[in-house]
Amino acid sequence: MLLYNSQVSGNCYKVRLLLAQLGIDYERRELSVADRSNRQEVLGELNPAWRIPTLVLDDGRAIAESNAIIWYLATDTPYLPEDRYERAKILQWLFFEQYSHEPYIATVRFWVNYAPDPPPQSEIESRRAGGYLALDALERHLALEPFIVGRRYSIADIALYGYTHVAEEGGFDLSRYAAIHRWLDRVARAPGHVPITA
Amino acid sequence: MLLYNSQVSGNCYKVRLLLAQLGIDYERRELSVADRSNRQEVLGELNPAWRIPTLVLDDGRAIAESNAIIWYLATDTPYLPEDRYERAKILQWLFFEQYSHEPYIATVRFWVNYAPDPPPQSEIESRRAGGYLALDALERHLALEPFIVGRRYSIADIALYGYTHVAEEGGFDLSRYAAIHRWLDRVARAPGHVPITA
Repeated sequence: MLLYNSQVSGNCYKVRLLLAQLGIDYERRELSVADRSNRQEVLGELNPAWRIPTLVLDDGRAIAESNAIIWYLATDTPYLPEDRYERAKILQWLFFEQYSHEPYIATVRFWVNYAPDPPPQSEIESRRAGGYLALDALERHLALEPFIVGRRYSIADIALYGYTHVAEEGGFDLSRYAAIHRWLDRVARAPGHVPITA
Repeated sequence: MLLYNSQVSGNCYKVRLLLAQLGIDYERRELSVADRSNRQEVLGELNPAWRIPTLVLDDGRAIAESNAIIWYLATDTPYLPEDRYERAKILQWLFFEQYSHEPYIATVRFWVNYAPDPPPQSEIESRRAGGYLALDALERHLALEPFIVGRRYSIADIALYGYTHVAEEGGFDLSRYAAIHRWLDRVARAPGHVPITA
């Protein structure tokens, strides 16, 4: 398989982490998150949104969107439960991550660390406030549950871990989130865990 | 089943459309999209993001996020294919919808029509530009395919139809999108189709 990757992207890290835990070998092609001028040329036929991660299977077919990729890879493995309701809850949290969490926490981290032309500070602060709402929701849930769904490690944990564990790089103060802290430690101890730098 | 609903929400319409096509009876509880002050009180225990749609099953368990709900309802029906790769492509387009389409097209429609305190016109125009990028991607895909995935009607069509078919209410000019127009007609002719007002 071939992964169109950025080493600093939490969305790409989700895919790398699961591939490591599944013991699947793959190639990487690194793309820049700052200079996206070659995205259409490289990804035009593979991903309608011209984004990374994009995974190309051995038969040449492609899958885009980080959470769709990890769902595909986790099928028939312990990282994706079989139960219909648990699967719906996994999806609920994957969509929460892409709609209410990533656009705030990942975007602020990008603006602060990587953006060639970040917006004014007032816009960054406004976006950061949305990130805290997502962290508040995650904290309420993890105060009651050891993992995101079904009391065991799954792709829902991988999806939420991707950007939560580097939120401080975007200036988010995680010290007030005790349940999130315990969950981050729990996820990092899952068998086969690798860091975002791997 | 009980659906926490807004009649004008395209996200809620996705669920109502599929429930109608599946012939499933359910109750509705209407919530305002303009005044969200009671969301925590009503949805606090059911949905971590305090959003609609939220579906409560007959046994009292809840599912949130429109695209997670329609995936759950479509399981073991013709609206969700069995093939592993087709399912990944369905998910890819559901995540595209929530990340690259809805935050632009639905948000601008909301600001223009329903928001009690919309942002400045410059911000609306900037957001509208993002919506056109999503429509461009959808047009490129639908120029090659009759439906979103697998050459047949599925929940991916329902998810993209939800806000695309009312994009003009947000000031989007759809006249330049011939393939999207043909696809909108195709979706509206699917058996059991109901309009957003139903």
